[in-house]
Amino acid sequence: MTFQEKLDAAVRQNDSLLCVGLDSEWSKLPAHLQGGAEDAQLAFNRAIIEATSDLVCAYKPNTAFYEARGLAGWQVLMETVKLIPQHIPVILDAKRGDIGNTSRLYAEAFFDAMGVDAVTVHPYMGTDTVSPFLAYPDKAIFVLVKTSNQSAVEFEDLPQPDGRKLYEHVAGQVAIWNREYPGTAGIVAGATYPEDLVALRRQLPEVPFLIPGVGTQGGDVQATATAAGSNAIINASRAVIFASGGTDFAERARNAADALRQEINLYRV
Amino acid sequence: MTFQEKLDAAVRQNDSLLCVGLDSEWSKLPAHLQGGAEDAQLAFNRAIIEATSDLVCAYKPNTAFYEARGLAGWQVLMETVKLIPQHIPVILDAKRGDIGNTSRLYAEAFFDAMGVDAVTVHPYMGTDTVSPFLAYPDKAIFVLVKTSNQSAVEFEDLPQPDGRKLYEHVAGQVAIWNREYPGTAGIVAGATYPEDLVALRRQLPEVPFLIPGVGTQGGDVQATATAAGSNAIINASRAVIFASGGTDFAERARNAADALRQEINLYRV
Repeated sequence: MTFQEKLDAAVRQNDSLLCVGLDSEWSKLPAHLQGGAEDAQLAFNRAIIEATSDLVCAYKPNTAFYEARGLAGWQVLMETVKLIPQHIPVILDAKRGDIGNTSRLYAEAFFDAMGVDAVTVHPYMGTDTVSPFLAYPDKAIFVLVKTSNQSAVEFEDLPQPDGRKLYEHVAGQVAIWNREYPGTAGIVAGATYPEDLVALRRQLPEVPFLIPGVGTQGGDVQATATAAGSNAIINASRAVIFASGGTDFAERARNAADALRQEINLYRV
Repeated sequence: MTFQEKLDAAVRQNDSLLCVGLDSEWSKLPAHLQGGAEDAQLAFNRAIIEATSDLVCAYKPNTAFYEARGLAGWQVLMETVKLIPQHIPVILDAKRGDIGNTSRLYAEAFFDAMGVDAVTVHPYMGTDTVSPFLAYPDKAIFVLVKTSNQSAVEFEDLPQPDGRKLYEHVAGQVAIWNREYPGTAGIVAGATYPEDLVALRRQLPEVPFLIPGVGTQGGDVQATATAAGSNAIINASRAVIFASGGTDFAERARNAADALRQEINLYRV
């Protein structure tokens, strides 16, 4: 089964384009989880996953929030991936990108050892850095094209001699990779730049879009869902998982996730 | 003490611009290290460090070769950093780059918890992604500007409307970061593109250059050492640490490192 097929099945089953970002920062975990028998970060992820797994099309843990804890965090990340139901795609937000010899090791670490379905990658160093990932026909990469942060405009929007912007050149390269390795390459495009989302969807009608920036970062749900079309994975992290810092955190996360899911469904095309 | 001061002291003490890349890939470790009391990867790094620490100006472990082993590798990476003598800078080749909230966590993981002196970072997402690292006055980042791999030309060499290439724009931004946060930003520039090294040194006379690509990747030592000037960290990984796969691996690594150190010194300006 390709990544796209697995994603499509999850979207249908849960009637959802919502991805929940498991950015489970240690210092923000509900206080009552500390001191229990299980690691607080793992207990938190377990509760969030149990409360939302019928509402999402994917989960997206960001490696930083686990690596920041060293060994213990790395272990929680691996166990978290195992906690996610088999039919829900896991996108590891690792933002890696290295020379071929090294990217191959990352691909083995994430796809073979950890067992995730997709990873996010930096395009700057070119094809060498992504081809070891593309060699997995049942996995996918999401290439950073137009990111959700403020300073995304500094390089990504640099006008090129042909009138296009740098990120449009990168998107063009993703289309080539996706033709050479069918169904294995999508893009990251931030909800905070809805006009660019429209242009990118026109440029890339068939690849999946991973869209961060809804929620805490302020991206508009209606504009995003309308622009992105149905092959989209719309991610919210903090706005869902930290909806409450109290003992009701899982229930409140479920409510926040369901509200977002339904809002997206109102506008998806 | 700033990173630059620590680097300068190590360069003087060991009369060396050589950095040894601890890309200690599990499958390439000498067979006789397996099955010992100590983890083979850690035993390997320990022997390499003991055999070369009077010959180098820095060590550069690449995170991929440790993350590929999961928990065990992560632990070896942290212990390896502790094995490196205090006066030798450690550059973690992590090639990270994320939104500010997340980069802050990486900075804490690498600078505070792991205790390395510098990290490599991807520029694509702009200033947000590097400012959490720049906030450490005694640490440094090395921004990927012109990398050593073949497909580096795809995006990094894209001609811009002003006639410069994309990587020269990135280099210009590094100069700005280095003015705003003095002494905290250097660049990565591959030995495999010696003419670009010359141009970059003209553009950035004062920042340290981390130069991969000598050795297995085929970069010319004379051209590199001449172009880069004295504020350069010239890295070799596989050509040094895997000079032999036998029981003499540490001695042979020392010989390879010393030969490279001396060859660089012949040509450094």
